[in-house]
Amino acid sequence: MTKSIPTPLLSHKYADYVSVAVDAALAAGEVIKHAFKQPKKVEEKLNHADLVTATDKAAEDLIFSRIRRSFPDHRFIGEESSAAAFAEGVSEVQLTDAPTWMVDPLDGTTNFVHGFPFVCTSIGLTVGGVVVVGVVYNPVLEELFVAAEGGGAYLNGERLTVSGRTQLTGALLGTEVGTARDDDTLDAMFGRVRQLVGRMRSVRCTGSCALGLCSVALGRCDAFFEINFGGCWDAAAGALMVSEAGGAVLDPAGGTWNVMARRVMAAGSGDLAEAMAAVLTKCGKQ
Amino acid sequence: MTKSIPTPLLSHKYADYVSVAVDAALAAGEVIKHAFKQPKKVEEKLNHADLVTATDKAAEDLIFSRIRRSFPDHRFIGEESSAAAFAEGVSEVQLTDAPTWMVDPLDGTTNFVHGFPFVCTSIGLTVGGVVVVGVVYNPVLEELFVAAEGGGAYLNGERLTVSGRTQLTGALLGTEVGTARDDDTLDAMFGRVRQLVGRMRSVRCTGSCALGLCSVALGRCDAFFEINFGGCWDAAAGALMVSEAGGAVLDPAGGTWNVMARRVMAAGSGDLAEAMAAVLTKCGKQ
Repeated sequence: MTKSIPTPLLSHKYADYVSVAVDAALAAGEVIKHAFKQPKKVEEKLNHADLVTATDKAAEDLIFSRIRRSFPDHRFIGEESSAAAFAEGVSEVQLTDAPTWMVDPLDGTTNFVHGFPFVCTSIGLTVGGVVVVGVVYNPVLEELFVAAEGGGAYLNGERLTVSGRTQLTGALLGTEVGTARDDDTLDAMFGRVRQLVGRMRSVRCTGSCALGLCSVALGRCDAFFEINFGGCWDAAAGALMVSEAGGAVLDPAGGTWNVMARRVMAAGSGDLAEAMAAVLTKCGKQ
Repeated sequence: MTKSIPTPLLSHKYADYVSVAVDAALAAGEVIKHAFKQPKKVEEKLNHADLVTATDKAAEDLIFSRIRRSFPDHRFIGEESSAAAFAEGVSEVQLTDAPTWMVDPLDGTTNFVHGFPFVCTSIGLTVGGVVVVGVVYNPVLEELFVAAEGGGAYLNGERLTVSGRTQLTGALLGTEVGTARDDDTLDAMFGRVRQLVGRMRSVRCTGSCALGLCSVALGRCDAFFEINFGGCWDAAAGALMVSEAGGAVLDPAGGTWNVMARRVMAAGSGDLAEAMAAVLTKCGKQ
């Protein structure tokens, strides 16, 4: 198991960024792994389905301080700090062309609280508004995913390739039900999943958007989609993992994916992504 | 990690049965683990969502021959051999009071085909029509679950306890979408999950009924239910794991669970199980 920057990325033009992101993710992973089996103090954010713990906050502080030390001029968007900004009246974070780090210190907080082993740190970096570096680390299963623009995607040093499956029939879908609990959102969400599952092999919900996207990069799942997740930090790194593993990343209604849109669709081929988009657009309200 | 009969069960009245079941599960696990990363020849049973591989069949033969060698007079119900019996016109397997082994040689065949690490061998034994021994082994994650009537449930030798959660609010649900793809079954299934998720924290679908039940025994999930699964082999061992970890196992509509009914509900407390049954009975057709 190689828990460091993959060898082929050592000479990548963003190798310094990759290296710092990997170090920060591994350090956060130590904090998460240590806390995973301890009792937790849980706070609710919007409702009982939307949680935060002291570990989320400690891991975010650790990651930001590590990256800032190396790149003090870069911008930062983090799940916990952005939530604080929203609470202070900031309605939206604007993405600029400057290098911008998008950090979910602990994706899968519900899993973390319940001891379900799909938890991770997700770190993405945009330059010119495009994701160019992605690092996702699951410290419980010790899986380190790393990708850099044009340089490929790797799990513990091994290069990843998507399944390449092109048709809905026989394709395994990943998705998440999200944290909203109002009837309209639930009806729309279950309507979409029901239409896709009716045409596909089955569905997996493991509780982490970042790891769901990594499952597509791995070929464990053929496709993943989620609409209305928390923010760019959930999907930035995982989306790069899919495209660098040879997959397609689109908006769930088809067309270009927007990293700030809080919705994503990824698949093992462009054909499969288009077929999913055709089903999802028929489902109406999204 | 202890991959053998848990020490407290060495003096159990069914210790011989437990020992043979553990040996058979570990042997089948070796076959599954070896095949997990190899190319697979996949056959469809009812449709593209209902799969079988040569590994399912080889593992079942191995398990049956191991158990038969020790207990030649016992009865056997296995997923693959029962499917063959159904194809020959046997409409239903009758459960008697005789010791009867219920074996799913590879639960999570879709996961196995796609390289998703939730696969297991599930072995249950009924005596007098009641499940008295359960063994579930995931050879990819090296998790061995063992339970015996009145003797507790164990993961790799450590005693298991359910979460004990009593309310829907804040409870994490596990379920599966099954292999039927007709509109009526899908509408009914998604209707049930939507109603439960509207009241609960979130849902996980990991592709194995046996491991879903073990997640409740572990406390990773607070509850699990599935309706219309393949047969008694999917749930016998996992249901005993839950009850021996202090949880409740009921029919999804409430009332006594029937091991032959192809439906099960398990929860970390009787109160939570009753609350789920109340929601599910309001969903109508099951």
